[in-house]
Amino acid sequence: MNRRHFLGALATTAFAQPKTPRINAARLRRHIEELSVFGRPAGGTFADGVSRVAYSDSDVAGRAYVSKLIEAAGLKPRVDAAGNIFARRPGSDPSLPPVLFGSHTDSVPNGGNFDGDLGTLAAIEVIQTLNEAGITTRRPLEIVDWQNEEGYAFNNGLAGSRAAAGHLDKGELDATWNGITKADAIRKIGGHPERIAEAQLAKGAFACYLELHIEQGGTLEKSGTPIGVVEGIVAIDRYDVEVTGFANHAGTTPMPERQDALVAASYLTVAVNEIVRGTPGRQVGTVGQLNVSPNVPNIVPGSVKLVVELRDLSGKKIEGLAEQIRTRAQQIATQTRTKVDMRAAAHHDAALATPDVQKSIEAAAGKLGLATARLPSGAGHDAQMMSLLGPMGMIFVPSVKGISHSPKELTSWEDCARGADVLLLAVLDWAAR
Amino acid sequence: MNRRHFLGALATTAFAQPKTPRINAARLRRHIEELSVFGRPAGGTFADGVSRVAYSDSDVAGRAYVSKLIEAAGLKPRVDAAGNIFARRPGSDPSLPPVLFGSHTDSVPNGGNFDGDLGTLAAIEVIQTLNEAGITTRRPLEIVDWQNEEGYAFNNGLAGSRAAAGHLDKGELDATWNGITKADAIRKIGGHPERIAEAQLAKGAFACYLELHIEQGGTLEKSGTPIGVVEGIVAIDRYDVEVTGFANHAGTTPMPERQDALVAASYLTVAVNEIVRGTPGRQVGTVGQLNVSPNVPNIVPGSVKLVVELRDLSGKKIEGLAEQIRTRAQQIATQTRTKVDMRAAAHHDAALATPDVQKSIEAAAGKLGLATARLPSGAGHDAQMMSLLGPMGMIFVPSVKGISHSPKELTSWEDCARGADVLLLAVLDWAAR
Repeated sequence: MNRRHFLGALATTAFAQPKTPRINAARLRRHIEELSVFGRPAGGTFADGVSRVAYSDSDVAGRAYVSKLIEAAGLKPRVDAAGNIFARRPGSDPSLPPVLFGSHTDSVPNGGNFDGDLGTLAAIEVIQTLNEAGITTRRPLEIVDWQNEEGYAFNNGLAGSRAAAGHLDKGELDATWNGITKADAIRKIGGHPERIAEAQLAKGAFACYLELHIEQGGTLEKSGTPIGVVEGIVAIDRYDVEVTGFANHAGTTPMPERQDALVAASYLTVAVNEIVRGTPGRQVGTVGQLNVSPNVPNIVPGSVKLVVELRDLSGKKIEGLAEQIRTRAQQIATQTRTKVDMRAAAHHDAALATPDVQKSIEAAAGKLGLATARLPSGAGHDAQMMSLLGPMGMIFVPSVKGISHSPKELTSWEDCARGADVLLLAVLDWAAR
Repeated sequence: MNRRHFLGALATTAFAQPKTPRINAARLRRHIEELSVFGRPAGGTFADGVSRVAYSDSDVAGRAYVSKLIEAAGLKPRVDAAGNIFARRPGSDPSLPPVLFGSHTDSVPNGGNFDGDLGTLAAIEVIQTLNEAGITTRRPLEIVDWQNEEGYAFNNGLAGSRAAAGHLDKGELDATWNGITKADAIRKIGGHPERIAEAQLAKGAFACYLELHIEQGGTLEKSGTPIGVVEGIVAIDRYDVEVTGFANHAGTTPMPERQDALVAASYLTVAVNEIVRGTPGRQVGTVGQLNVSPNVPNIVPGSVKLVVELRDLSGKKIEGLAEQIRTRAQQIATQTRTKVDMRAAAHHDAALATPDVQKSIEAAAGKLGLATARLPSGAGHDAQMMSLLGPMGMIFVPSVKGISHSPKELTSWEDCARGADVLLLAVLDWAAR
């Protein structure tokens, strides 16, 4: 075996790196394709996407496949009390905390084959590549397949990484969904909910957490940039809005007498869009859910419930936007003779990436001749939980047309390989520190 | 029995009418209260309204109660092939077509105790009153309790009066709802669907059709007018609108990249309201039904289906409004990068009341010292079908706060009695012609 130490090799000058390893793009692709069959619609193809909701039989089968790949890469998979799969590759200095990297393999219903899968399988590919290159790193390497990142099950995501960060909600294990408790769901994927506290990682338990993921937006594709360097994961504020009017006959109620909750909700939906777009910056604001009551063609709507969601790297900024929306909502209520009640329903802090990790990712891309762009992540990721425990960084690769959470989700195989190569070099950089 | 002929008595001068009969207000109230128990929520009171959906067991029981009242008024109830209940009181000239009057006793789910019930029970009360006054009219009188006016069952109203007017839809009897066909539903209430054509009335089959009904709007109450004289039943145009955008991640899709179907639908809902209100007149326009897909807080809505409904006595006017809405919809589509498809889904012609019948109702109210106001009916009524066959008029009484199709639907007992007295005198007027 042509094994040699790679300690700090990447931090030294160019002539010291003639053998910079590269991942095996064909194998990475094959693994993504093989994983895609678990949760694939009956009779479908890769292009039909996947429904691998956490704790489903498909998820269990997908996780078994991941464990098999880990074993094939020479490591021993270990399921922690929360049901996350970890595997450690020893370093030359066993006293050092490892470099931790990975992603998740659960999906939303009718999701795609790249969200989570790419980062998880690329982590295994990094291990295989180092094995084949005969490289032993200074720090140990630890790979992870988190459980229930999407949160479709139990309507509560980042479940595995929250357990690792000690951020489980009170009573969360007793929550029920589809007829089973979360505790039993965790047991189904091999966890031990009765001792879930053991899944918690200490601050400083890793040197750095890295995650490769598809962008899920169209920024990189639009600018033709192969590698995104995440600045942070945005803060999210969610508001439940209830508009109360008065339901009445749509034929017999004169226009001036109406208290039409849907007209009020429509003014508000337009206002959210215009206020968010009218402010410079990359913040987003969405009314994604809206339900009308009684919702029949010949009755003036009596009430509407809707959800306003605001996201930005700056929590202060979205607070200011919410204030503008709240003021506008009260004007609309007066104007439409309705009542508009807007209540804060959920808040997630922003998780900023560590500057040193961002620089490391940029340096890795630079060695590969790949252009980079810094950008926020509008979606939540397990990385935000890990940022509570130590340095964190994320690598994004382009999503074709920015489509995600859809069978049409797509990242070119070339871009997948580029992202995995950047991950490999960033891991080697941090493993040598 | 102190029976005397009343032919033309009301058309003569005041001194000839010392014995102008009046209905028995207490009995009318008792009958409305007694009918209200059929379909009343378990453990509820009169104020809890009624769910007497056509063809339900409650409807069958309610119709049996109506038949019993008809018998108590000395007439023989006759169920026609369509399931409508008729009963005839002979006139002194059996060769003449009768005066036809009545209403319906089915309700919407969670409806009130006046919509339909008042007009049906007032018709029976008119018969009882004439019996007690010993009056025989020149023309025969015919009362009717139509079936399935509301159309909640089979989503197709005015079912009995449409059968009488020969306006059943093709294949309507084969329609299924709640697991039974319409044919079987009609059998359940005593009809004979296999010979439903026999239910059709000829043009000129009656001298005049009269219907007493609650206004279901707030116009009469607001102006303090006890009797409304209906000018006609409005035309209704209904449009199915489908807004197609693109569903994408609400965190990762930048605002300028979005094709948000709900933002487009909201602009359109506001536009419908503003266009309808911005035109002088009494027309109404409503978006009462709107469904978002996929309708989750963190996904930009990919499509929205909504229904636009326009009503006015002038069909031309609402066609013009629809044209304005269509033009605006295309501007909104361009502006929001969505596709807006607006298809005509249903059209009902206006049914104008007969001027002579309106005058007769006004004269009847005048004799009773009751103020009248002419107004359109924004709701559909069996009267619109009868207008296809002969002279038609409707008497409205005030709805408290304009509330209808709700347990809160309310008309004062005094107003109920006033309406029934106006019906009585208008019937006598037409029966004498």
